[in-house]
Amino acid sequence: METIAVYPGSFDPVTNGHIDLIQRSAPLFDKVVVAILRNSGKTPLFSVDERKEMLELSVREFDNVTVTDFSGLLVDFAERIGASVIIRGIRAISDYEYELQMALINRRLSNRVETVFMLPAETYSFVSSKLIKEIASHGGAINGLVPEEVERRLQKKFAPEA
Amino acid sequence: METIAVYPGSFDPVTNGHIDLIQRSAPLFDKVVVAILRNSGKTPLFSVDERKEMLELSVREFDNVTVTDFSGLLVDFAERIGASVIIRGIRAISDYEYELQMALINRRLSNRVETVFMLPAETYSFVSSKLIKEIASHGGAINGLVPEEVERRLQKKFAPEA
Amino acid sequence: METIAVYPGSFDPVTNGHIDLIQRSAPLFDKVVVAILRNSGKTPLFSVDERKEMLELSVREFDNVTVTDFSGLLVDFAERIGASVIIRGIRAISDYEYELQMALINRRLSNRVETVFMLPAETYSFVSSKLIKEIASHGGAINGLVPEEVERRLQKKFAPEA
Amino acid sequence: METIAVYPGSFDPVTNGHIDLIQRSAPLFDKVVVAILRNSGKTPLFSVDERKEMLELSVREFDNVTVTDFSGLLVDFAERIGASVIIRGIRAISDYEYELQMALINRRLSNRVETVFMLPAETYSFVSSKLIKEIASHGGAINGLVPEEVERRLQKKFAPEA
Amino acid sequence: METIAVYPGSFDPVTNGHIDLIQRSAPLFDKVVVAILRNSGKTPLFSVDERKEMLELSVREFDNVTVTDFSGLLVDFAERIGASVIIRGIRAISDYEYELQMALINRRLSNRVETVFMLPAETYSFVSSKLIKEIASHGGAINGLVPEEVERRLQKKFAPEA
Amino acid sequence: METIAVYPGSFDPVTNGHIDLIQRSAPLFDKVVVAILRNSGKTPLFSVDERKEMLELSVREFDNVTVTDFSGLLVDFAERIGASVIIRGIRAISDYEYELQMALINRRLSNRVETVFMLPAETYSFVSSKLIKEIASHGGAINGLVPEEVERRLQKKFAPEA
Repeated sequence: METIAVYPGSFDPVTNGHIDLIQRSAPLFDKVVVAILRNSGKTPLFSVDERKEMLELSVREFDNVTVTDFSGLLVDFAERIGASVIIRGIRAISDYEYELQMALINRRLSNRVETVFMLPAETYSFVSSKLIKEIASHGGAINGLVPEEVERRLQKKFAPEA
Repeated sequence: METIAVYPGSFDPVTNGHIDLIQRSAPLFDKVVVAILRNSGKTPLFSVDERKEMLELSVREFDNVTVTDFSGLLVDFAERIGASVIIRGIRAISDYEYELQMALINRRLSNRVETVFMLPAETYSFVSSKLIKEIASHGGAINGLVPEEVERRLQKKFAPEA
Repeated sequence: METIAVYPGSFDPVTNGHIDLIQRSAPLFDKVVVAILRNSGKTPLFSVDERKEMLELSVREFDNVTVTDFSGLLVDFAERIGASVIIRGIRAISDYEYELQMALINRRLSNRVETVFMLPAETYSFVSSKLIKEIASHGGAINGLVPEEVERRLQKKFAPEA
Repeated sequence: METIAVYPGSFDPVTNGHIDLIQRSAPLFDKVVVAILRNSGKTPLFSVDERKEMLELSVREFDNVTVTDFSGLLVDFAERIGASVIIRGIRAISDYEYELQMALINRRLSNRVETVFMLPAETYSFVSSKLIKEIASHGGAINGLVPEEVERRLQKKFAPEA
Repeated sequence: METIAVYPGSFDPVTNGHIDLIQRSAPLFDKVVVAILRNSGKTPLFSVDERKEMLELSVREFDNVTVTDFSGLLVDFAERIGASVIIRGIRAISDYEYELQMALINRRLSNRVETVFMLPAETYSFVSSKLIKEIASHGGAINGLVPEEVERRLQKKFAPEA
Repeated sequence: METIAVYPGSFDPVTNGHIDLIQRSAPLFDKVVVAILRNSGKTPLFSVDERKEMLELSVREFDNVTVTDFSGLLVDFAERIGASVIIRGIRAISDYEYELQMALINRRLSNRVETVFMLPAETYSFVSSKLIKEIASHGGAINGLVPEEVERRLQKKFAPEA
């Protein structure tokens, strides 16, 4: 039996909280596919290609982890690549409610894919891509919260403002 | 004593979760008025008239249920039609917090109207108009989650994209 | 159509939060039956008879409200007296979770009885029979949180300690 | 890579909610070990042997699921049997908080075992062993909520009361 | 030892809930600095100057309370004025989650500033600047929820619509 | 103005989570009084004297922190020692709900004492005296979660079992 797990998200940009979760899930499944949602709705800070580059740098030490991107319904994508697991990180209550709702609707859309929830390390319990961008835009310290490459790119993005 | 209850919402479009709640509340009150909020703030997918048509089709089997629309403050509308009850469905925590806040402010605005909360069937605990529209826009299956007429109209709305 | 509503609880003793809810629900239904659960599991402070006396004093101004007691399953009792509504007050999150669970199981046990949730006034959002007893046992001030008769009886119960 | 998952609990008695979760997790991991906690603290309704019998009947259709019991710390047991995953079902908020706390402490006690959370079907979102026992003790209907064998045994346990 | 506390917010406009919290915190710290966040992201109803005027009128009775405004990171501002305390009011769950996240990130950004949470009076548990504006825009009654000066200015803002 | 803060609890035994909170509050107030509740209801593992000894060892580095014990209502104790602040740590939602309820009732019992909530470090977000005792009773590792003296005493308490 080979179990493929999808870890979907915007990853705009990837944080150490995301990487912590990838590191925890890699040993549990045969393959982990990190999947960037191409969401035309929101204006991202980084392009899909930039996000992919930063993610690939961050996960290259894990043999069974790959990075890709997708659009449309998550369960359709999961079925297409033969994944039977969706990995989601949970932190706060509001997260949790939304995540439960998504897991139930995804289950209805496909009974061949099951959502499992995992906990990031407490150290990252307050880290989100959105907060990281906000702090970086004000010149606040983000070292230790994102990979070094991401930190470097964020500083570059927000440098012209200075 | 005649008790009139208002069930307010955007109903953009009505889902089987809404209809479940209407079905549960109809036997408890003398009249249930389903009231579509004309909200100029958000851009709806369906016009007020379309929403009304779909709702009317869905509730025609209930003798004491009527459909209308309103703008302005909910309590003002409730008082105008002689309603003493506002019906609200609750599912998740975030819902609940917001609903409690609204119930308290509405109570302050009028002490002649009381909010009661009811639970939709678990089957619909993840169904919201917003999610339905998102799934339909990606061609996902929504049968069983909305009335057939609504399904047909959603497919038509999103067909030109194909 | 006559709608009978049951408002079940331990009422050990009745608080002003309970009375607030009775007062809010009395105008909405034809009859409201306040039903004391005879729970052999916990040791109550007041006997069922004492609790009934205090409740009856508190609701005598409401024409359509009566007080009784029951044992066994709530839905069996509700069906026996022809009630189609169970009234439950909700305050905090933990309350809410438990109440939702009970409402769903009761719905499964009988589809002729529906649970509706109502909000006590914010002034009573922290009042519970348990807290009242704890404060009274330390001689703390409980006036305004329970009916005067209840206050008098609580002081008597805890007087021998002095 | 072989992934062994532990699904721990009291299972006093097993419910259809538990079985739903076992059924969902069996395809995701190489082995699933259902582990009954021998908890000297609480007085169970069924002995560990009875609980094991009912569980074994319920999971015999799953090739990679076995039933056992343990005492002491869960992570010690998990490490002893070579498990790298602890499966926990989550329903309500209060569940969730407690489960998060346990997952974090277990992670600290062993970094070789990771907790994953899974959702039971909505149909079982209100089902708990405790509620089942309470309803059965009042002669309420529990069919469809527990396996038939469990229903039969519960009726026998509570029959002498009649 | 002199303890300076910052009470940050948008105050668009100040409500009686904010003033309740200022009144409660003034006796606990040597100085309380009410700090209006100049947030270029959202379009406020009142300018920073208008908000400052309304706040200053509202706090003039407290000797140790001053009003100012800031931009950038809150902790940078707090350090600049020698504050060791950030005061935040908490009401609902969703508030709470967000507030915890902000407190943890602020702690990481500066270990010289600590966040303390305080509760507004229950009477104001449903009052937010956003709701106040919505009610006022529909001509609803807001007396008792905001200072008189704020009520007067809101009526003026929304008068041209009539 | 001198501000005295009370930090009440069972401290059975003190954990590093408690000490983290004491360390964070000591710089904010003129005096912090750690107050052990003598609760006749529950059977503690350590006597009040033992708990006081362990606490005093843990806080001796803080000049403005003292340890004492009390019974009866917290607000009565706070008023007796001239305290205007009650410090409470908050972690999880269920905590939060209970804490809010207590803060509101305490405010009603005395308007001269205000509750402020503070956050322990994330590292201790899962640490509670109850969990520590449970782990220690099974011989699990608790180093880093409690002061060394507490660790030593817990091992001694649970040694006779071996």
